[in-house]
Amino acid sequence: ADIDLVGFARFGVVYNDGTEDWNLTNRFQLDVIGTTEADNGMEFGGKVRMRITSAGDYMNANGTTTNGFNDPMLWVSSDGLTLMVGNVEYALDNMPGLAMPSPGLLGLEFISPAISIPGYGSNAINGSDAVAMTYEMDAFAAHLSYDPVYEGTDMYVAYTFSGYTFALGYQDAYAYSTEWAAAVSGDIANIGFNASYADNGSDGDAYGVGFDYDINSALNVSGFVAYVDALDDANYGVGFAYDLGGGAALKGSVGYLIEYTVADFGVTFNF
Amino acid sequence: ADIDLVGFARFGVVYNDGTEDWNLTNRFQLDVIGTTEADNGMEFGGKVRMRITSAGDYMNANGTTTNGFNDPMLWVSSDGLTLMVGNVEYALDNMPGLAMPSPGLLGLEFISPAISIPGYGSNAINGSDAVAMTYEMDAFAAHLSYDPVYEGTDMYVAYTFSGYTFALGYQDAYAYSTEWAAAVSGDIANIGFNASYADNGSDGDAYGVGFDYDINSALNVSGFVAYVDALDDANYGVGFAYDLGGGAALKGSVGYLIEYTVADFGVTFNF
Amino acid sequence: ADIDLVGFARFGVVYNDGTEDWNLTNRFQLDVIGTTEADNGMEFGGKVRMRITSAGDYMNANGTTTNGFNDPMLWVSSDGLTLMVGNVEYALDNMPGLAMPSPGLLGLEFISPAISIPGYGSNAINGSDAVAMTYEMDAFAAHLSYDPVYEGTDMYVAYTFSGYTFALGYQDAYAYSTEWAAAVSGDIANIGFNASYADNGSDGDAYGVGFDYDINSALNVSGFVAYVDALDDANYGVGFAYDLGGGAALKGSVGYLIEYTVADFGVTFNF
Repeated sequence: ADIDLVGFARFGVVYNDGTEDWNLTNRFQLDVIGTTEADNGMEFGGKVRMRITSAGDYMNANGTTTNGFNDPMLWVSSDGLTLMVGNVEYALDNMPGLAMPSPGLLGLEFISPAISIPGYGSNAINGSDAVAMTYEMDAFAAHLSYDPVYEGTDMYVAYTFSGYTFALGYQDAYAYSTEWAAAVSGDIANIGFNASYADNGSDGDAYGVGFDYDINSALNVSGFVAYVDALDDANYGVGFAYDLGGGAALKGSVGYLIEYTVADFGVTFNF
Repeated sequence: ADIDLVGFARFGVVYNDGTEDWNLTNRFQLDVIGTTEADNGMEFGGKVRMRITSAGDYMNANGTTTNGFNDPMLWVSSDGLTLMVGNVEYALDNMPGLAMPSPGLLGLEFISPAISIPGYGSNAINGSDAVAMTYEMDAFAAHLSYDPVYEGTDMYVAYTFSGYTFALGYQDAYAYSTEWAAAVSGDIANIGFNASYADNGSDGDAYGVGFDYDINSALNVSGFVAYVDALDDANYGVGFAYDLGGGAALKGSVGYLIEYTVADFGVTFNF
Repeated sequence: ADIDLVGFARFGVVYNDGTEDWNLTNRFQLDVIGTTEADNGMEFGGKVRMRITSAGDYMNANGTTTNGFNDPMLWVSSDGLTLMVGNVEYALDNMPGLAMPSPGLLGLEFISPAISIPGYGSNAINGSDAVAMTYEMDAFAAHLSYDPVYEGTDMYVAYTFSGYTFALGYQDAYAYSTEWAAAVSGDIANIGFNASYADNGSDGDAYGVGFDYDINSALNVSGFVAYVDALDDANYGVGFAYDLGGGAALKGSVGYLIEYTVADFGVTFNF
């Protein structure tokens, strides 16, 4: 039985040409992860997260306002099969190749063709007591999640063949947009790539391509272009990460998102 | 000087024939316990707890809604004498043999003949800054607690003789029901038992008997029957715990509590 | 990369002749401090604090009411230069020799000639995302802080010469009182002392002297006299700390603060 404390922090500056202003931005995150292994090899675990983020001149305006932990995730895992309950990981939010790379300090807001999908709540309090199952065997992976509050199921299946991963996803809750999604990802000549499509129902279609490349042992660049009907216009961005060692990195990005040019620069570190 | 993190989690399903429904249930609990030993051997300590529990389709509805820690308990301890301040342990809530065994996943709601008594608050925020003392010497044990908000004192004395523990308790706050209580507990032919009685004042009388038995090195069964005037009718239940190793166990129970048949089944684990 | 948990607790009694009453008092504090070192020797860090304090018959009335953590401080540090963001340390609140010693259990309310100055928020939630820099080289130290919400800058410079530290400070936010301050501190014949002055603007002047002395390896006494226009009359106090080993100490004090005689007695310990 173990308890691990896993920390992450970032700070730097962020620009948005809607406000035409550079602002400070920072985040502090602490995960408390407890696990134990039963005699038959099954792993039981639980996790809570505290995430505090600054917004403008103030701390913590974009998450919980109480600086406590989020709702817990609990799980049991054995032979590639994991059952989660509580604040679970959802399928579309974890579907291989669906979301674009997250360049820079803030990840350019995690652009994904699949918009409005259920997800793990880093600041969730009093959220859904959901259920999810993931299964991995050799080249096959699947994820099924169910939210009892929205009475919604989402799922994906993925298969890896000759280094390329093909994934198909589906979601049926009225509260969320995406109806189905498809993605492929892999490496071509040491450049990671992904291409994905989502049918967002009444919010239209969306598709995008992304790349990720290690220029040398310290410097990585990544970027994407995504057309999302609900976000108007094309969205694109590119960023870099320079490894400082010890879990720290310099990161920066520039992009065009939802009609605004945005940029960020700063440092991230793990502890 | 040490800080220990002590975790507990459970998840499973619970049935109640009032709602005629099975529901998911889960809990995540983390204790942060700091202690140090002075040169003369006195131990100083402090403890806070975070407990998050699901209720129905939502997380955390039956405790604090902020997912923070509870009010701290602080103590100093030496030669069997412990002084506690803050969110303390109360006497009747810890009186040997008074409460029934807690079979199954949820412990069948911790039935005790002593109803409405002061207790340590696992979710308490802005609670009483109380004081308590416990003393143990050889076969003798005593516990005295005082709540300054309700201006109430509760206490017990216990004595163990030939393997049987006899305990007497008392409580005088108008905000709580129980006026006095008596209990005996021990083992007969490797079966643990307890029998207890409480005078709950205007809430009437209550009494009960419980048992606890290790069928083999992995399987334990326990149960009780308790008559509590304020809960109408007889309340009874039986449950099992199957040790999976590594601090994990399968647990289940079925019982009749406050006019409803209830049942639960799931897993608990420590980390 | 490391995560340190650093705990502090105190409990005891406090007297105030305004209420003519002795009251229980206690506090539990936990710091979570994450740090990592990059390959070039720079240190990156982040810290959050949970502090819960009793007030009268209740827990936690004088701080956050949610028992969560405070806003985080993040920093990067190299070669004596530290940059902090978030819930930062402010200059005047850390100026050498400015504040009086803090005798006894509660520190007699941290009397300082500089009143109403910005400070690190042990219970701050949704506070300012501020910036600060500190620099130390040989005998020289400087601290500059900026609060974007109050648009205020405060700073000090300090120089140590022949064992005496001279410091000058300045603050310009309208929301705070102190305009400038000066202090000297050091040791004379093994007795630590400090003398300081603050111009508190429309709140008048203030000055004080303090001392700190180790009578033997276990017993320390400290005290001060301070004249603060805004607090009327002279304020003075004296206290002791008796080291119990293991990070625990008995502490007590008596003083005259803001027209009332106050006293405290209790124990503090680290874990």
